[in-house]
Amino acid sequence: MKRTLGYTTNPIRRHSSERDPEALARHRDDPKRLVVLVAGDIPILRAGEPVTALLSPADTDRVANGLEEVFLGHLGDRPVVARLAPSDAADLFREDPAFIVMDLRSAAMNRIAPHDELGILATAKSLLDWHARHRFCSTCGSPTTLSQAGFRRDCASCGAQHFPRTDPVVIMLVSRGERCLLGRQTHFLPGMYSCLAGFLEPGETIEAAVRRETFEEAGVRVGAVRYSASQPWPFPSSLMIGCMGEAESEDVTVDREELEDARWFSREDVRLMLRREHPEGFFVPPSVAIANYLLHEWLDGSE
Amino acid sequence: MKRTLGYTTNPIRRHSSERDPEALARHRDDPKRLVVLVAGDIPILRAGEPVTALLSPADTDRVANGLEEVFLGHLGDRPVVARLAPSDAADLFREDPAFIVMDLRSAAMNRIAPHDELGILATAKSLLDWHARHRFCSTCGSPTTLSQAGFRRDCASCGAQHFPRTDPVVIMLVSRGERCLLGRQTHFLPGMYSCLAGFLEPGETIEAAVRRETFEEAGVRVGAVRYSASQPWPFPSSLMIGCMGEAESEDVTVDREELEDARWFSREDVRLMLRREHPEGFFVPPSVAIANYLLHEWLDGSE
Repeated sequence: MKRTLGYTTNPIRRHSSERDPEALARHRDDPKRLVVLVAGDIPILRAGEPVTALLSPADTDRVANGLEEVFLGHLGDRPVVARLAPSDAADLFREDPAFIVMDLRSAAMNRIAPHDELGILATAKSLLDWHARHRFCSTCGSPTTLSQAGFRRDCASCGAQHFPRTDPVVIMLVSRGERCLLGRQTHFLPGMYSCLAGFLEPGETIEAAVRRETFEEAGVRVGAVRYSASQPWPFPSSLMIGCMGEAESEDVTVDREELEDARWFSREDVRLMLRREHPEGFFVPPSVAIANYLLHEWLDGSE
Repeated sequence: MKRTLGYTTNPIRRHSSERDPEALARHRDDPKRLVVLVAGDIPILRAGEPVTALLSPADTDRVANGLEEVFLGHLGDRPVVARLAPSDAADLFREDPAFIVMDLRSAAMNRIAPHDELGILATAKSLLDWHARHRFCSTCGSPTTLSQAGFRRDCASCGAQHFPRTDPVVIMLVSRGERCLLGRQTHFLPGMYSCLAGFLEPGETIEAAVRRETFEEAGVRVGAVRYSASQPWPFPSSLMIGCMGEAESEDVTVDREELEDARWFSREDVRLMLRREHPEGFFVPPSVAIANYLLHEWLDGSE
């Protein structure tokens, strides 16, 4: 089951001690190097059997000027580097049948990007996006420079060190007996319902965030909370923390600022929604998403 | 057991819908308001039975110029606001016996700050510290201004919205049969050993971070990982994610860049360390810390 959960498998061996000041320059000249190329926020994949996000140096030659680079670690004896290119560099690949130019969310959902490389793509996309949005020091406003092979940015003006950001998000399947609570945001595809979710706030435990978000969005009180699984979600840099919650109340009051609807569904509803056979056209997110995993766990009554 | 874990109890009722543009101004004039005052990074507590971090408006009159304010939520019908004051504002309270001026870590450890308010103090300290370090836009370098009653900062120049940051940290009790793995950092008090821990990196699951950090720091391979509990750790803004890990190897290779030592301890060692009766003077963190909680869980063989 966990096998199909997206962004959780990453075969790269990473070790923070290998992030020395010369690491990027050293690997830049290594003919064995593999490159994960992201143009703006679009990853460039090599077509073929199998499709791969791990490009050879020759594949990336056509991109004259890259922006930041990050050393991700090793695959066997091959160093892997993620490279940010300007958004318009995607055009250099778009009409070449040797490459696939597609946003990561679609490439994962449609199973075009290889499942085993989704964790690599998640790391690359989150880190490169972080660099693109942190070229200035939040403490003093001066320009920052990349250090620690891409895992830090330093401000020469005030001395602040800035580290990549990962935002914890709680996502919870709240249930009461034979029914579970699902909601839909306005921007969802028509008919799609998913688990409630929200950013954990400063000073909250995971369990408190599950209870607060469920009450804020749907007016339902949650008692016991049990952690189930976690998943990186690189849009741009979330850590999804999947939990099962036991509802202590049933009346639903939807916060229309956050959700378009929230309601209770039976086990049979959920079975039909997973198979996209629900008579009212309702369905749930695909297996790449942790909401799907939590729903299967609830139906199975076990992990 | 969880009762003693610090920073996890927060009686404030928070709701993101109450963070309208007028919220701070409205509560600033409310005679019932309660104020959590932080000077630099030092909270100002009111002495008495009980000690409290929830000051009255009269208590804070002596601070002429505050910096940022954040609306935390309600306690009953009383709005609670956190206010950042310059570091030297602590001097206005230091010699007044009606107040206690002490860094939060010490106040929690020595049980001077009230246990039930530690979660409030964690939220206030993390948020105010975030404001102090994010007065400029990391995307373009321009000044930012506070919005959403203190839960966002906006850049008028490039339009970026910045949200408070919470950094997920994995902390794990790794064990193999009757022994568990503890380490010490150079800055620990002499004799103190604790669970291994480290920041989760972009693109990692919680479970992968537990395995990577344990291998990086101690060279020990971890198989099964089980989530146990979480804890806000406001130094400055971590979320501690406590896990139990099963070691698959025993040889310890300490990364001296990260740790001064790491070694295996028996259950009897841990019992004596918890009671501070170990013959070699070893001990573990106090009950306010999640490492202590994980050690108790391991000894009990249950939560």
